[in-house]
Amino acid sequence: MKQNDSVSLLVVRRLPRYYRFLTELKKSGIVRISSKELARRMGLTASQIRQDLNCFGGFGQQGYGYNVDQLSDEIERILFLDVSMPAIMIGVGNLGRALSSFLYEAKGIKLIGLFDKNPKHITELNPDLNVMGITKLDEFCAEHKPQIAILCIPSEHAQQMASRLVSLGIKGFWNFSHVDLHLDPSICVENVHLGDSLMTLGFNVHTQLKDVVRGGESTEKTDSNAD
Amino acid sequence: MKQNDSVSLLVVRRLPRYYRFLTELKKSGIVRISSKELARRMGLTASQIRQDLNCFGGFGQQGYGYNVDQLSDEIERILFLDVSMPAIMIGVGNLGRALSSFLYEAKGIKLIGLFDKNPKHITELNPDLNVMGITKLDEFCAEHKPQIAILCIPSEHAQQMASRLVSLGIKGFWNFSHVDLHLDPSICVENVHLGDSLMTLGFNVHTQLKDVVRGGESTEKTDSNAD
Repeated sequence: MKQNDSVSLLVVRRLPRYYRFLTELKKSGIVRISSKELARRMGLTASQIRQDLNCFGGFGQQGYGYNVDQLSDEIERILFLDVSMPAIMIGVGNLGRALSSFLYEAKGIKLIGLFDKNPKHITELNPDLNVMGITKLDEFCAEHKPQIAILCIPSEHAQQMASRLVSLGIKGFWNFSHVDLHLDPSICVENVHLGDSLMTLGFNVHTQLKDVVRGGESTEKTDSNAD
Repeated sequence: MKQNDSVSLLVVRRLPRYYRFLTELKKSGIVRISSKELARRMGLTASQIRQDLNCFGGFGQQGYGYNVDQLSDEIERILFLDVSMPAIMIGVGNLGRALSSFLYEAKGIKLIGLFDKNPKHITELNPDLNVMGITKLDEFCAEHKPQIAILCIPSEHAQQMASRLVSLGIKGFWNFSHVDLHLDPSICVENVHLGDSLMTLGFNVHTQLKDVVRGGESTEKTDSNAD
């Protein structure tokens, strides 16, 4: 399948959601689905779905709909989930440890190293996690060439660490530190600002209860991964 | 301060970010800042910032700029961070435990109960966490009236649990389960789909490396809390 070269970021950001829905369909043993039915389940329009998938060549057949397995495999390829990208985690606190168990099961990424300023303490808590000291970082990156870094360190150290990681060859950050990183535009950053997300929810619930915001805006479902 | 009644959700979603930057400014001892300088630090335009803050009455003074403390306090009030909303957590696995320590320090929310299908196991791991069995949920909600639920349960159970929680009076969900919830529009849902976020990052790094996506779209900084 030839991938369209001018794929918009907006379409790309919807693909993981398609993939999630298709995985659910597979689990429930559904082998084919019409764009109309997929649209209903995803809260999109059928034409939106056809447009999105056409960006990648389109896999639907007139009168048949989409083959769930095939479409899911295609999106898996499009999202490069069939290629494992080496990643390291910086900061293995509570959140880092929770993410590590999630990451060991995730497709498209391979967690090859965990780093913390206090590796002993963490390894005592979780003997299964082989956590290294930050002092080993340069040597490790030179040898194993990780491309993604998962940042779970306090915000005051995040920018300095991110710049250091870029100089060590990191191309993308999954940033859980509560700060926006200033890096070269060639570096990809996906922020997960949990604090911002929680504040938005709190505001929406308050305003929904107090009906401060008119037009039902506060009731709008938000998606932390939506664009 | 009289709050503008027709605040757009887009402005609201930027406020936590303003709050985060102002908190950093306070930490570094900065007492006042011009909209121009705040814009520079936040990667916005000065007029955007003035527009946003004018929605809430605007606190800037001509030739003085913004008083950091005052502006931060105002945004804290606007986001209802001075009011603690009672919340419960459903599913106290690795992620739930990590979030609980984050939540105990967060403003605007008070975690009053944690629930899991296997409370004994978790309490053994973390004696400090008082985790209750799901069977206690109805009784607890009737007595303590939580308004927010943090969902950290497997996706296959999330929809059913969410519907049950709505019937128990929950008004908003911080949803970490990897599924989109179908609920009454009056219910606020803030999704944190970590899987989607990670897939988006992976795609962006791959395409950046392979330069598949043209126009530098793949290098665009994304924010999981951006609208």
